[in-house]
Amino acid sequence: MKPVSVIKVGGAVVEDEASLLLLLQEFSSLPGRKVLVHGGGRSATRLSARLGIESRMVNGRRVTDEETLRVVTMVYGGLVNKNLVARLQSFGVNALGLTGADVNAIRSHRRPPKEMVMPDGTSEVVDFGFVGDVDEVDGSILGCLIEQGIVPVIAPLTYDGKGGLLNTNADTIASEVACGLAAQGYAVTLTYCFEKRGVLYNAEDENSVIPRMSEKDFRKLVEQGIVSDGMIPKLENAFQALRRGTESVVITCADHLNVKDASGTILVKEGCSA
Amino acid sequence: MKPVSVIKVGGAVVEDEASLLLLLQEFSSLPGRKVLVHGGGRSATRLSARLGIESRMVNGRRVTDEETLRVVTMVYGGLVNKNLVARLQSFGVNALGLTGADVNAIRSHRRPPKEMVMPDGTSEVVDFGFVGDVDEVDGSILGCLIEQGIVPVIAPLTYDGKGGLLNTNADTIASEVACGLAAQGYAVTLTYCFEKRGVLYNAEDENSVIPRMSEKDFRKLVEQGIVSDGMIPKLENAFQALRRGTESVVITCADHLNVKDASGTILVKEGCSA
Repeated sequence: MKPVSVIKVGGAVVEDEASLLLLLQEFSSLPGRKVLVHGGGRSATRLSARLGIESRMVNGRRVTDEETLRVVTMVYGGLVNKNLVARLQSFGVNALGLTGADVNAIRSHRRPPKEMVMPDGTSEVVDFGFVGDVDEVDGSILGCLIEQGIVPVIAPLTYDGKGGLLNTNADTIASEVACGLAAQGYAVTLTYCFEKRGVLYNAEDENSVIPRMSEKDFRKLVEQGIVSDGMIPKLENAFQALRRGTESVVITCADHLNVKDASGTILVKEGCSA
Repeated sequence: MKPVSVIKVGGAVVEDEASLLLLLQEFSSLPGRKVLVHGGGRSATRLSARLGIESRMVNGRRVTDEETLRVVTMVYGGLVNKNLVARLQSFGVNALGLTGADVNAIRSHRRPPKEMVMPDGTSEVVDFGFVGDVDEVDGSILGCLIEQGIVPVIAPLTYDGKGGLLNTNADTIASEVACGLAAQGYAVTLTYCFEKRGVLYNAEDENSVIPRMSEKDFRKLVEQGIVSDGMIPKLENAFQALRRGTESVVITCADHLNVKDASGTILVKEGCSA
């Protein structure tokens, strides 16, 4: 099986020059086939504010009205994506920026309004607006580009099949892209990069990285309140990728991309020690 | 020789829903290999205004400071490009949005400050800022994508080879892309679409289209004041493409893309009737 690395980096990594530089160095020296998936939420929030558009988040996800869709199309598809592509090219990476609409790579449908539990315990029907839930990643066209030495750099925008773009969480896109490539017979390593070195036992202690975690461990850690907030959907995406054919999933920070020891949290299929 | 159509559409065409729809219909029904190059200046000016950034134009070209570069990256590379790609996909066109940085397709260098004659006849040294003059189009990679049934949709942003994007006139990009493909052995038809049906003898009379024009005719028409203003650099780009191997160049409007009769202005190599 041909190996491929799918790396997801959050907005915080690409929006700060020092951490971006570190990422560019680490990512460009990563050998073999690779794909980068990026966020950009902070820039979107900043541009929205400058334009007088209110950013409404529900459980960490952005409610996307028509104006906000224009903002994220500009920020994710233009500002963040194209600058990443240009910077990567200068590091010798033959980057190609993509949204889900480009070569019809990632198809989604608009999320119907749904009842959600709010932080205060009440429930509310939330219409996220122009937000897409992924239906299908075209792993064949992505694989075809990758085999030509091209490195897809994917913005968190998907395509509704009817001429419209939809805003989609970058963690989800990374997981779906990993599965799409796995379905084409690739041996996929999926790495989620964020500010911490891995999933922590103790959020205050950077050295308390949980080295290995099964889905059973994960459920237990959620029950115990050790894993909480934004880490829950991230890990759910990650375990879904594992269930759907991704060979390995690692949660780590951007400057540990090339470290081969167990510096991050490795998600494992079988129930083993957490 | 394999035929390919390179179509350039201005901002006015893609930024108005009615004319955009017409373009999508015409472009999608155009048979064979094709490339779309687009502008987006009006949207850039509008976003700049909303952000309190002054748009400074010299002889119709945008002075691009750092903030303006961010704006055009968002508008050309994101908003206009990605919406065009999504709309084209819904018309069955396998569109792929590109800037010059993507797959290193269009390399340029930053234009040095240069002395320019202003409309009032005085001269001034103008630094256009982050504006790129094209060095090279990678016709090989574009050809490679086209042969896979992909339709490149190119935003007017080029790449400086050092990690930076540069703002480049879309007419120039269309001409350079046409030449880059011609150098790969393609028989290139380059069409510039704008609001008028072609180059007019009389700007007030839509029916006064000049059917054929050689470069000698063009110089004469400029002397006579019949061709003036923005039409001059457009035609200069067009004749340059003709000199550098493009098979034919047509100036017409977007709803005449598929019309095979001489509805627009056809530029010809030999000196013949204007």
